[in-house]
Amino acid sequence: MIPNANRRYVFAARPTGLAGPEHFREETVPIRMPGAGEVLMETQLLSIDPAMRVWISENPGYVPPVQIGETMRGFGIGKVLASGDPRFAPGDMVQARPGWQSHATLLASDVQALDPALGSPLDWIGLIGMTGLTAYFGIRAVGAIKPGETVLVSGAAGAVGQMVGQIAGIEACRVVGIAGGAEKCAILTGELGFHAAIDYKAEPDLAAAIARECPGGVDVFFDNVGGPTLDAAIANLRLGGRVVICGRISQTASGELYGVKNLGLLIGKRGRIEGLLVTDFTARFGEARHWIAAQRDAGRLKQRMHVIDGLDQAAVGLGMLFKGENMGKLVVRVAG
Amino acid sequence: MIPNANRRYVFAARPTGLAGPEHFREETVPIRMPGAGEVLMETQLLSIDPAMRVWISENPGYVPPVQIGETMRGFGIGKVLASGDPRFAPGDMVQARPGWQSHATLLASDVQALDPALGSPLDWIGLIGMTGLTAYFGIRAVGAIKPGETVLVSGAAGAVGQMVGQIAGIEACRVVGIAGGAEKCAILTGELGFHAAIDYKAEPDLAAAIARECPGGVDVFFDNVGGPTLDAAIANLRLGGRVVICGRISQTASGELYGVKNLGLLIGKRGRIEGLLVTDFTARFGEARHWIAAQRDAGRLKQRMHVIDGLDQAAVGLGMLFKGENMGKLVVRVAG
Repeated sequence: MIPNANRRYVFAARPTGLAGPEHFREETVPIRMPGAGEVLMETQLLSIDPAMRVWISENPGYVPPVQIGETMRGFGIGKVLASGDPRFAPGDMVQARPGWQSHATLLASDVQALDPALGSPLDWIGLIGMTGLTAYFGIRAVGAIKPGETVLVSGAAGAVGQMVGQIAGIEACRVVGIAGGAEKCAILTGELGFHAAIDYKAEPDLAAAIARECPGGVDVFFDNVGGPTLDAAIANLRLGGRVVICGRISQTASGELYGVKNLGLLIGKRGRIEGLLVTDFTARFGEARHWIAAQRDAGRLKQRMHVIDGLDQAAVGLGMLFKGENMGKLVVRVAG
Repeated sequence: MIPNANRRYVFAARPTGLAGPEHFREETVPIRMPGAGEVLMETQLLSIDPAMRVWISENPGYVPPVQIGETMRGFGIGKVLASGDPRFAPGDMVQARPGWQSHATLLASDVQALDPALGSPLDWIGLIGMTGLTAYFGIRAVGAIKPGETVLVSGAAGAVGQMVGQIAGIEACRVVGIAGGAEKCAILTGELGFHAAIDYKAEPDLAAAIARECPGGVDVFFDNVGGPTLDAAIANLRLGGRVVICGRISQTASGELYGVKNLGLLIGKRGRIEGLLVTDFTARFGEARHWIAAQRDAGRLKQRMHVIDGLDQAAVGLGMLFKGENMGKLVVRVAG
């Protein structure tokens, strides 16, 4: 039985600060059955990511902005309900970019089948999804961690941050996380194997706190946050230290950008700062998923998920990310 | 005939802004004859470099600061007058760090013989000295230029900048220089083979000027200047672009550091910023000197020198660097 109503959230107003439900409009439209080379997907899980706030800004830079009137863009997992393409059959579990809608009619070439042997649908959206892959390639390929090095992670309790810390720990690094609040810090050290955690909300001088927890300095700083945290980390960088810029959640929706003052220190430290986009590593996603799944199966790696229910909660969730209200990977369960 | 008076300039007062003669004190002291394993060097040429302002700051970071009462530190070229070491004989031309003094008694292990076949004393201080080596390794090894790429150089009329531009040009890059004033710009394009030059003093919007002269974007930005110039260059960086931070002359003696706001763009651009110190490449200085000398002999590479006469002009020269009053490599001729 295929339903005939597609519920969707359309981008309705470009935000200047944080994004919330007021920037999206609910619509119900008929479902369009797939033509040749198309697939109809029922959305079950939607990934809610800080990058989404960038996609709805006027000039994201690396992708076209979401336009007013478009269904909000987003990654998700779901089930094939009908297929006009021989590669997919009803009942297949797939990943794609359905956006914020209950049903999406997509080009089959934009849809990938999930291998259930490698992980559950929640794993496919987190641990072995874009989140886990971003952490894997960010800290290993871009950060180029070596055993024995000290790794500092900002936004450490966030989706990517917690994975980065655990992966670096598996690779025999000493891992220090920065997060907001005692509860998050306790989870980092108690549950996720971080060697130390810094509660930035409780530290009057973040650079001094980093120096205290990383007494020999920082070899690799994995930054999800940007802003003054980046300055504090550069001040503590060791000779030959690397900074991976993955995100800058403190700056994404802020009116005035923070100016980073410590770049001059990179000369004496021979430090490196590099930006990361996981899509550069698409050809190696398979190898990464197998590594992550093996670590998970051995009990060395897990992803804390923060699941909220209902498509109408997607925009609420987007706001939560920027207020630090999520603990781990934020997912909206739409169906299933 | 060995004289018995050493004239020297001692660091006398730590500057807060620009450095000048008021921060140094002239002294005349007896020359100390070299003991076993030592060499007495007559200083002939002294290199005047922006880094010297960093060395006399309270906390240079990568080297110990020059202390009040010490002879001012500096690279130079000179002649051996007396030797207590079998590796050197009177009359040998050598390079070392004599500092700002007419005669220096140095450990022989801190002194290197010059190969006159590779270049003149002026070449050894510029073209195949630290200046040329910094440019060579900075743009080739750190910047990792490839033929056909667009290279942007700030401080392009300065000692390192002019070398960077020419080396990138030899490597078949398109080279755009940023300098202050029409005269410097004319020398870059007319004499040093730059494809275009931007007079930052005549441009109300430097980012727009870079976009105009680098219409496809910047693959490698070699930065001697720092500050807002760095922001303007990052805004124009291409996908996979690199920034080599060699110096930050706009920030070295400034009271308040400029905050760089465009680091977030590195994510979408997968850009890289890396600090450079030439001493990391010591093991490869020989190969670099041979390459540079061969390019010079073929007429493809030259170093414009700015020579001022007299040890008493060293501190004046240091100030000139920060006011943009030199055109090319600044050298003080002390003797010879």
